[in-house]
Amino acid sequence: MTKEQLISQIKAKKSFLCVGLDVDLDKIPPHLLDTEDPIFEFNKAIIDATHDVTVAYKPNTAFYEAYGLKGWKSLEKTIDYLNKNYPDIFSIADAKRGDIGNTSTRYAQAFFQDLKFDSVTVAPYMGSDSVEPFLAFENKFTIMLALTSNKGGLDFQLLKDQEGVTLYEKVLKTSLSWNNSEQLMYVVGATRPAYFQKIRNIVPNHFLLVPGIGAQGGDLQGVCHYGLNNDIGLLVNSSRGIIYASSSEDFAQKAREKAIELQQEMSEILVAKGF
Amino acid sequence: MTKEQLISQIKAKKSFLCVGLDVDLDKIPPHLLDTEDPIFEFNKAIIDATHDVTVAYKPNTAFYEAYGLKGWKSLEKTIDYLNKNYPDIFSIADAKRGDIGNTSTRYAQAFFQDLKFDSVTVAPYMGSDSVEPFLAFENKFTIMLALTSNKGGLDFQLLKDQEGVTLYEKVLKTSLSWNNSEQLMYVVGATRPAYFQKIRNIVPNHFLLVPGIGAQGGDLQGVCHYGLNNDIGLLVNSSRGIIYASSSEDFAQKAREKAIELQQEMSEILVAKGF
Repeated sequence: MTKEQLISQIKAKKSFLCVGLDVDLDKIPPHLLDTEDPIFEFNKAIIDATHDVTVAYKPNTAFYEAYGLKGWKSLEKTIDYLNKNYPDIFSIADAKRGDIGNTSTRYAQAFFQDLKFDSVTVAPYMGSDSVEPFLAFENKFTIMLALTSNKGGLDFQLLKDQEGVTLYEKVLKTSLSWNNSEQLMYVVGATRPAYFQKIRNIVPNHFLLVPGIGAQGGDLQGVCHYGLNNDIGLLVNSSRGIIYASSSEDFAQKAREKAIELQQEMSEILVAKGF
Repeated sequence: MTKEQLISQIKAKKSFLCVGLDVDLDKIPPHLLDTEDPIFEFNKAIIDATHDVTVAYKPNTAFYEAYGLKGWKSLEKTIDYLNKNYPDIFSIADAKRGDIGNTSTRYAQAFFQDLKFDSVTVAPYMGSDSVEPFLAFENKFTIMLALTSNKGGLDFQLLKDQEGVTLYEKVLKTSLSWNNSEQLMYVVGATRPAYFQKIRNIVPNHFLLVPGIGAQGGDLQGVCHYGLNNDIGLLVNSSRGIIYASSSEDFAQKAREKAIELQQEMSEILVAKGF
């Protein structure tokens, strides 16, 4: 998918909502557990119920790997179903991968070629040659961790160097010099709205993937105030707040209602900003 | 596996060799491609030929994920074979995972419980609550990236803070305060021998996993000079130099010869140091 196609979709749906498919067998409606592949059935129902107000889906690979081969199969079926039925929707493998050059290429092949995701999340610690192999794939996006929403995000990401530049700022600045850096996006937690202005000064044009709205306590208005750019430039993720809105047979309908709530809030913000 | 069991194995074999199982279908002997699971057959032959001089095996998950479901199946068969036939050998899932708390628990379940690895590599960028969930598993080890051997390792890991402390040093120091930090090990690239002394000052007691010997140009003597501690405290990995020593039917025998070369060098060093 190209950036322009993603932006068109956002404008058409008046939504920059990403739904996180972090599926836990202990949390999904019990009636699904009798099906052959409960995780896939859950995802399929959530996608069918929310696709018209959602521009991206983001399965976190940890939740699939925890179930071994079966889980990997559910992930494969989910992305196949999404790509076949809703080819305009942006897909994110939330995998946070990163390794030395030839090994990162393998991860890129896994997510871009084998599974056919539009994008994958990566970790920056190993630097340029751990990320550039992902950027070599045309019309695919690499979403790098910058400033994360968790408590531990403060351990290292806010360390200041001798010129007063924090690590996350250095990560952002450095990455702009990498090959095909226009195919980067960045993960910025919604729990850190005060930092969005600084981040937008460094990467005015890139998309930001923003987790942490809802269950993690992030604030949509705060994120949008500084985060929106001329291309909209935001994908805001909600996982638990949408997919576990109900644990009964009405789970997909309730997920839809929660997704619509967020989409309407987004739509109002977009209209107010003149999109 | 306990640390004491690992040390006993090292002393008994006079080896701290880890063999990296980074299997590429384009590089393995062509005659294996006709088998039902070429990756597993290759690993099985390598393990059978080298287990008496090797204390650890380290499949890098990228090479398995690149082949999708089939690759994950090969990984599962490889670790099952190793655990069943050579239960004393230490196993490392080189996965470089890391995510927020409940998600990292899922990765830990995938590698420690579902696949039954003794250890997994993790990335530090997301801080304490991305790593501590792995450390909660008893008799399992979490091997965190500290100073990596690749070119990009220099991008961020050597940044100095306002007191002159580099990021990798800060990562090491900070991690010592985490819950169950005695179950940590650290990845330190063999291409950076000058840093081993500094690292040993910060983490005198922990094991270091050292990739980069052989194909990446690292030097075993240099690594051992500063890296060895009272528990030996090193696992030195070689991947391509051993497993691709030959691409003919004699590949396992040639891998054995290369493994013995390294083990003999290690044995001499251990004897010289009085182990």
